[in-house]
Amino acid sequence: MNTEKYPEDAQVLCDLCHLFGERGWCRATSGNFSVRIDGSHCLITESGCDKSRLTTDDLMVCDLQGQATDPLRQPSAETPIHTCLYQLDESIGAILHTHSVCSTLLSIQSGPTLTITGFEMQKALASSNSHEEEISVPVFANSQDMDALAKELVAAWNEERVRVPGFLIAGHGLYAWGKDAASAQRHTEGFEFLFECLWQQGLVRSS
Amino acid sequence: MNTEKYPEDAQVLCDLCHLFGERGWCRATSGNFSVRIDGSHCLITESGCDKSRLTTDDLMVCDLQGQATDPLRQPSAETPIHTCLYQLDESIGAILHTHSVCSTLLSIQSGPTLTITGFEMQKALASSNSHEEEISVPVFANSQDMDALAKELVAAWNEERVRVPGFLIAGHGLYAWGKDAASAQRHTEGFEFLFECLWQQGLVRSS
Amino acid sequence: MNTEKYPEDAQVLCDLCHLFGERGWCRATSGNFSVRIDGSHCLITESGCDKSRLTTDDLMVCDLQGQATDPLRQPSAETPIHTCLYQLDESIGAILHTHSVCSTLLSIQSGPTLTITGFEMQKALASSNSHEEEISVPVFANSQDMDALAKELVAAWNEERVRVPGFLIAGHGLYAWGKDAASAQRHTEGFEFLFECLWQQGLVRSS
Amino acid sequence: MNTEKYPEDAQVLCDLCHLFGERGWCRATSGNFSVRIDGSHCLITESGCDKSRLTTDDLMVCDLQGQATDPLRQPSAETPIHTCLYQLDESIGAILHTHSVCSTLLSIQSGPTLTITGFEMQKALASSNSHEEEISVPVFANSQDMDALAKELVAAWNEERVRVPGFLIAGHGLYAWGKDAASAQRHTEGFEFLFECLWQQGLVRSS
Repeated sequence: MNTEKYPEDAQVLCDLCHLFGERGWCRATSGNFSVRIDGSHCLITESGCDKSRLTTDDLMVCDLQGQATDPLRQPSAETPIHTCLYQLDESIGAILHTHSVCSTLLSIQSGPTLTITGFEMQKALASSNSHEEEISVPVFANSQDMDALAKELVAAWNEERVRVPGFLIAGHGLYAWGKDAASAQRHTEGFEFLFECLWQQGLVRSS
Repeated sequence: MNTEKYPEDAQVLCDLCHLFGERGWCRATSGNFSVRIDGSHCLITESGCDKSRLTTDDLMVCDLQGQATDPLRQPSAETPIHTCLYQLDESIGAILHTHSVCSTLLSIQSGPTLTITGFEMQKALASSNSHEEEISVPVFANSQDMDALAKELVAAWNEERVRVPGFLIAGHGLYAWGKDAASAQRHTEGFEFLFECLWQQGLVRSS
Repeated sequence: MNTEKYPEDAQVLCDLCHLFGERGWCRATSGNFSVRIDGSHCLITESGCDKSRLTTDDLMVCDLQGQATDPLRQPSAETPIHTCLYQLDESIGAILHTHSVCSTLLSIQSGPTLTITGFEMQKALASSNSHEEEISVPVFANSQDMDALAKELVAAWNEERVRVPGFLIAGHGLYAWGKDAASAQRHTEGFEFLFECLWQQGLVRSS
Repeated sequence: MNTEKYPEDAQVLCDLCHLFGERGWCRATSGNFSVRIDGSHCLITESGCDKSRLTTDDLMVCDLQGQATDPLRQPSAETPIHTCLYQLDESIGAILHTHSVCSTLLSIQSGPTLTITGFEMQKALASSNSHEEEISVPVFANSQDMDALAKELVAAWNEERVRVPGFLIAGHGLYAWGKDAASAQRHTEGFEFLFECLWQQGLVRSS
């Protein structure tokens, strides 16, 4: 099983990497991106690639236990977060992890929850119908132990603390998802826009 | 009646979507853009499109009551604002709604009017001849009821409170217009430039 | 005499317009750019063009009294500043007027002189050999009377108050020049970089 | 010995110049970039080139004493820093000097060492395995005497004060390196990302 069997999914992922790469959301080979290709596998960016110049050869197939179908290839260290999400929710079709300056800064400054209200852009997040609602983005402490992070995510999910299609890891960035790549892109862009707004508002408020 | 009949208008709108998309003015499928094609119809972006990759197939024709000529297509939820403006002023040939970080932030921070003076860029707005004039940009409260917003706009228009070719919706962004797409682009870029300047000045003043 | 006779100069100007246009330095048809083509004429951008999509057809030839060689064409309102500089100094081969957010903001905030020291980038300005020197950028009050502005420039020039290859107009932006387009580009980029640094430092100092 | 003999290295350097040029990291012909081509030579950008439009013709070969193999060509004034690093560490295969706004600002504001902790992005720097480590970036005073700067670098190196693959020069920017161009790019992007974060945090803290 290899990436050539999924030329459309591979191209969609590549295009997203280039788009987000130009925006500075996955500098220094950070960030990783995946799409589900069937009930038990996803296509995911390989570890250590420059996203702004990624080609479909830099993508790999792995199962939802995080094992590469090609034993010679190394999935990203953050693969357990992706596979954990695909297992938690069958309706998730794509997961995008961005590592932008604003998501990094806000995730360090906020406590365990980032609360957002008053922005029309909240409606870009599937869970929100109006700018008057208040949305809460979970913020997990950073860890180099990805399995521990995945367990924390499962606990939060089961306690229904993940009510928007994304969460932050402190000092590390955003994970956002959707039913397909277009939906995940919309959610990611919505979160990143809101983070930019909150950071800028914080510069005013802090003074 | 379909978009293929207006290939030049469709291409101009597409090019503007790409240009503004690259600048981050319509992230997460936000923003919508239209040009008038005759006395009773306009060409407008369809709901939910990624503007940075929009094609002419993502544009649709609707009449000035907001009805799509193709019953299978869904115009943007914000279509009533566009059609309301085309009805208010026959000289309006294009309307551009951007959803930038700075227009969002300023529209939340300001009261019902944003006052601007001292900038040469004011001359980019058709109504201004000098940097010494003071211009006033109306700011409407945000609402999920587009017809209510359109009524508020009509009232402000009739009371002559809309003296520049644009207005803000709080937490939601800018609507700007002109006699054609080039003119509307110039006005949009002028407003966005001035909003960036005002936000930056606010960072200094607030401290 | 028309632009087709100077295809290389025209292409260089066009490329600069696109490059600076992408950086947001000449939004809303602001900015204007010229190169000297002989002892008594220059090639200059026509009034009201979108610089990000400018073609060589949007350039025109005018003499150093600001008269277009083609009577049907309208040179930019700011042409007198360009022709004044070409007359003041025979060694000037290109003049670039940018209208960036930072040059606008700094020019409003500063008094009649902007002083810069401590930056390696000062060496990009022909007049500076070390980061330890102090350079002074003249800032003129804005005016809608271009001939009056040109006279003020001549006075400052004759009093040797213009010791760097550029000056600011308050609320309006930067004029920079050089012996050719490449040199003028280097000076413009050097000034704009320094203005960004000074504005950012001001955000810290003002708090 | 000329650049045509190293078409792949030359193309890699060119691509990096364009990429970094678009990001504003080497404006006004600032910045310089090199790759080692054998035990005693490197390929380096020529002095005074616009990096956003650099071609392989703007690259030159020089030996590790900084002498151009083509006597008609002028290596960048900062060549001694490059050759010094190649001599200090045989494993260095590429060196990238960026001159960004954030690296300039931070290097002026910080003392002789910039300390960074709490960011996942630290892991992009080869020397760091966790966001919990503290990394120290040396900051040297700026000087127009490149040989003196190179000597200061050698002293710091021998005292093991250079424990990350990069350092700052005050008011001047970043030097970063790696075993090859991809590794040096990753380090440069990691540093620049962290500098943006620190500068933004400083805006909050200073208020």
